[in-house]
Amino acid sequence: MLARSLELLGEWWTLLIVRDAFFGLRHFEAFQTSLGIARNVLSTRLAKLVEAEILTRKPDAQDGRRIEYRLTDKGRALLPVIVAMSQWGARHMRAPDQPLPYWFAERASGERLPELAVRAADGRELHARDLTIVEGPGMTDAIRAIMPALTRPHPARTDPVHEAA
Amino acid sequence: MLARSLELLGEWWTLLIVRDAFFGLRHFEAFQTSLGIARNVLSTRLAKLVEAEILTRKPDAQDGRRIEYRLTDKGRALLPVIVAMSQWGARHMRAPDQPLPYWFAERASGERLPELAVRAADGRELHARDLTIVEGPGMTDAIRAIMPALTRPHPARTDPVHEAA
Repeated sequence: MLARSLELLGEWWTLLIVRDAFFGLRHFEAFQTSLGIARNVLSTRLAKLVEAEILTRKPDAQDGRRIEYRLTDKGRALLPVIVAMSQWGARHMRAPDQPLPYWFAERASGERLPELAVRAADGRELHARDLTIVEGPGMTDAIRAIMPALTRPHPARTDPVHEAA
Repeated sequence: MLARSLELLGEWWTLLIVRDAFFGLRHFEAFQTSLGIARNVLSTRLAKLVEAEILTRKPDAQDGRRIEYRLTDKGRALLPVIVAMSQWGARHMRAPDQPLPYWFAERASGERLPELAVRAADGRELHARDLTIVEGPGMTDAIRAIMPALTRPHPARTDPVHEAA
């Protein structure tokens, strides 16, 4: 379901707004200062995130004349995406001599988060070579046609992800 | 480093090409069939990914007249991003009656991957309310000014991510 996610998340500003909401920003002016975009552009973007049920838009609990935007469960479920992308950027998009401006840490201990990894149910870290693709009941001829690697039905005999590694 | 990542990954096609490369696609024609875009557009996009050191571009080991594109270490490090985004889409961008076309599984066991979660070093799952932001040596006045939640220096007293949850 990557393509469906990217219809929404593939616009770069979406995840920046979600990140700011994780950081505690709730009000239009705060998002505007953070993102540095025009009011009408931000309005459209926030409305789109409300429509996508990633943010709610409600009167502020303290000051009913202000509107506040808060993450829904669907929005909060983007935490692994935000953390994975931020960590990848910190490791791979940074000049060697460029110090990190901030990092995520566990609140109780202050310890920096370890890098997010794909893991099996028992906690073992898995790499691309350890993975395969399994067809589900929603597989269609159209998807199968564009994905030759997916057409082999037995995981033990398929190796599509490994081949890429 | 989310903004830097999004300069590259925020173009939706980037992660689709990377996903196809994880699936085992290596040749221009295969990417073109999968993505359904014009040859010149795909050429530009592949060149950009080669320039960004996410793919390498080399003569095919079997047939030197063909070019093959393969993931670099930097590209393979996007696996958690791809998995996190695909799983989020499967859970949150799918109609209730729409069956899954495929899923990621461990190759050795065929078992479906559990959902990616943010975890502490000891393996405990962490939610947004358990996280905070710690300033690093690269923090600048500009970043601090747009991120009021970041200005509180002591993790034990900060609660920016929790406030959003």
